[in-house]
Amino acid sequence: MQITKDYIEANKDRFLEELFGLIRIPSISSEAAHKPDMVRCAEYWRDAIIAAGADKAEVMPTEGNPIVYGEKIIDPKLPTVLVYGHYDVMPVDPIDLWHTDPFEPVIKDGKIWARGADDDKGQSFMHAKAFETMVRTNTLPCNVKFMLEGEEEIGSGSLSKWVVDYKDLVKADVILVSDTSMIGTDVPSITTGLRGLAYWEIEVTGPNADLHSGLFGGSVANPLNTLCEMIAKCMDENNHITIPHFYDDVIECSARERELLNMAPYSEEEYKKSVGVKTLRGEKGYTKIERVGVRPTFDLCGMWGGYTGEGSKTVLPSKAYAKLSCRLVPNQDNEKIAVLVKDYLEKSAPDYVTVKVTPLHGGQAYGCPIDLPAYKAAEAAYMETYGKQPIPMRSGGSIPIIARFEEVLGIKSILMGFGLGEDAIHSPNENYRLDHFYKGIETIIAFYQHFAKGGEMA
Amino acid sequence: MQITKDYIEANKDRFLEELFGLIRIPSISSEAAHKPDMVRCAEYWRDAIIAAGADKAEVMPTEGNPIVYGEKIIDPKLPTVLVYGHYDVMPVDPIDLWHTDPFEPVIKDGKIWARGADDDKGQSFMHAKAFETMVRTNTLPCNVKFMLEGEEEIGSGSLSKWVVDYKDLVKADVILVSDTSMIGTDVPSITTGLRGLAYWEIEVTGPNADLHSGLFGGSVANPLNTLCEMIAKCMDENNHITIPHFYDDVIECSARERELLNMAPYSEEEYKKSVGVKTLRGEKGYTKIERVGVRPTFDLCGMWGGYTGEGSKTVLPSKAYAKLSCRLVPNQDNEKIAVLVKDYLEKSAPDYVTVKVTPLHGGQAYGCPIDLPAYKAAEAAYMETYGKQPIPMRSGGSIPIIARFEEVLGIKSILMGFGLGEDAIHSPNENYRLDHFYKGIETIIAFYQHFAKGGEMA
Repeated sequence: MQITKDYIEANKDRFLEELFGLIRIPSISSEAAHKPDMVRCAEYWRDAIIAAGADKAEVMPTEGNPIVYGEKIIDPKLPTVLVYGHYDVMPVDPIDLWHTDPFEPVIKDGKIWARGADDDKGQSFMHAKAFETMVRTNTLPCNVKFMLEGEEEIGSGSLSKWVVDYKDLVKADVILVSDTSMIGTDVPSITTGLRGLAYWEIEVTGPNADLHSGLFGGSVANPLNTLCEMIAKCMDENNHITIPHFYDDVIECSARERELLNMAPYSEEEYKKSVGVKTLRGEKGYTKIERVGVRPTFDLCGMWGGYTGEGSKTVLPSKAYAKLSCRLVPNQDNEKIAVLVKDYLEKSAPDYVTVKVTPLHGGQAYGCPIDLPAYKAAEAAYMETYGKQPIPMRSGGSIPIIARFEEVLGIKSILMGFGLGEDAIHSPNENYRLDHFYKGIETIIAFYQHFAKGGEMA
Repeated sequence: MQITKDYIEANKDRFLEELFGLIRIPSISSEAAHKPDMVRCAEYWRDAIIAAGADKAEVMPTEGNPIVYGEKIIDPKLPTVLVYGHYDVMPVDPIDLWHTDPFEPVIKDGKIWARGADDDKGQSFMHAKAFETMVRTNTLPCNVKFMLEGEEEIGSGSLSKWVVDYKDLVKADVILVSDTSMIGTDVPSITTGLRGLAYWEIEVTGPNADLHSGLFGGSVANPLNTLCEMIAKCMDENNHITIPHFYDDVIECSARERELLNMAPYSEEEYKKSVGVKTLRGEKGYTKIERVGVRPTFDLCGMWGGYTGEGSKTVLPSKAYAKLSCRLVPNQDNEKIAVLVKDYLEKSAPDYVTVKVTPLHGGQAYGCPIDLPAYKAAEAAYMETYGKQPIPMRSGGSIPIIARFEEVLGIKSILMGFGLGEDAIHSPNENYRLDHFYKGIETIIAFYQHFAKGGEMA
């Protein structure tokens, strides 16, 4: 729409100056000394939402950092978009590696350089400015709610509880999030999946004490050897997990989604070089993108037992331990898998050892169907601003709060991220392209228009 | 022989008092503060050998603790017995658990209670007194040499070199050693085998750095999972080692020796209870006694990698490590096995990891054929004093210096041990039965008589 483009063009410097004001507040959530900055940052956001045209906005205290909530309800019968973002940032160490002050943003080479420039101040602030643009140009086609937290980088503990208490307040039809990356500046993409996680500690006990490996070796089971065998048995020669019923709830990706996923540019040679391996290893029948995106894993994160010091000590250890994690995919319930794997390992253990498996940690996977109207609306929005169909992308990582939103609120999130892999988020010299910032605002506005129309293509 | 029995009876209190003098010297080889005690102890032995009737005896310095050498050559054409023993003892911690002063021997319940009462002062001193008895009763039928070291409990480093330098000096037909145990006070036995050892450290490298287990899990090999699989593959469902050529040099025990070995009293229920396991695990086709005594093993002594702290950390580690040991049996060369296993693990490793195997430590196995004339002589000696055929026993442990003697001097050792499993060697309240001390002296004297006659039964 020309009217919104004109508004953005006319206000572009102010938009940036306002973002810089947000960036200048050093809201590092993991450092207690920054507690007052968290509150200042939340207040800055509240004021920004009000200034952009919201009916109301407030800073709501929690046991941790405050949550900012704001809304503009133009007609309760219209659909509602809930915008989620976070105002907290990662620490800046090692500070010596920064070329400029992390909290004094500078523009250079067409990019904003600062902590939070991308993650997530730059990306979330696009939503405030897209909202303002629509309000001021009378093009806002639906209701909007804002929900910003200050603990994303430390686990979203407060928000996780807050959404339960304020379930009615944040009622919406879709959640819109810009906190991920796109494949490349000319390769638009939308993150459609995040993997879940189940994590266990395994304790294998053989004899009741460390034994002399000479006097007992050969007659008493070695718990380290046994643990190795138990782990080895859980994956077959095709790198398929052999635990019965493990894949029961995994929904195979549609041929169409697989086709779209694999449109992402990928060079196996470059990938191997970047991690320093000669050959990749993964489940037979799936591409690297699918293995990381849409298939579960079975990985030891740690293992220990017996003598681990310098030189040699001959001991037949009493105990062996491992930390095991499975990345899960949408529709696999992490609590169900936690019990399934625990039971399997404990019950299938040979009777010359005792095996105790303790689930430690878990999170649900998240998946957004590519035929969801809101996804279609996002697709149409990118088509309009980038002239290309965006590639659906499944991230191998986990953002537990996204699955939590679906669990508590029953609604899907659309992950329209405008970052780039090279933006150095969480690292020194974080940056965000200016053209992504402005094009992001345009694309968000386009999303609202398509979403209000029911997600159909323009 | 009545004449030697009478001599022992007439001198029994003095024999004991002399042993107590040896025990009172706190010759703990692993503690630097006891350096002067090591020299005092060696001198005590020198004087004891001279007093017993040797032609000469001397304390020979080494880079470590001195070695005592003494001899009586009655006729160079007669066979020569080389007695080996050690005068050093283990530390006494935890001292609180001792009921009496470890270095002030007391007699109680028919036993000597003190550090070294069995290992090896009590056992080695029987040889001095058996020698004296034969000299004083004119019954010594062959030449005798004594060789006592002060580093057995810390690895026999000095003696290992010394025997090379003094190969000619210690030339003999057989080595006689009392530093092991017998099955029971009424179940005489002779240790006919000691296992060897090969020991490696394994390093498995996957990616060039620890990776995010979400973003990379499923596409990059996990070195911990891979190491588990490599270890698991080395043993089949019969607990037989699968590494090609591993068993090539293993000599199967004769049916007769297996029969004799299995005559040792053994209760599987008591054994399982003592180590706290429900079921044993060992190589198919062999009894527990054979699995420990005459079969090699493949045991992890340690393993580590990735995150091993509290709670959960999701990481796909770059490295995985293990300490691997194989107990070996006679005729398996530990250096050959060290190379064989290293090559196998490195060359059979999947190409998505890099495997580096470093041999750390090794020792040869030792085996004494039960048809050896010296063994026959020992057998005949026990028949005479115990009225029973001794059971040949293969120890699962290793005494590297015994194999070293064979390697350097080319002669076999006869391990006539009179200790018991309950003697608490290396522990608080070490003890040694008085009747074993005196019956041991008699049995040693009987050995000399049979050995000089060519080992035939009396």
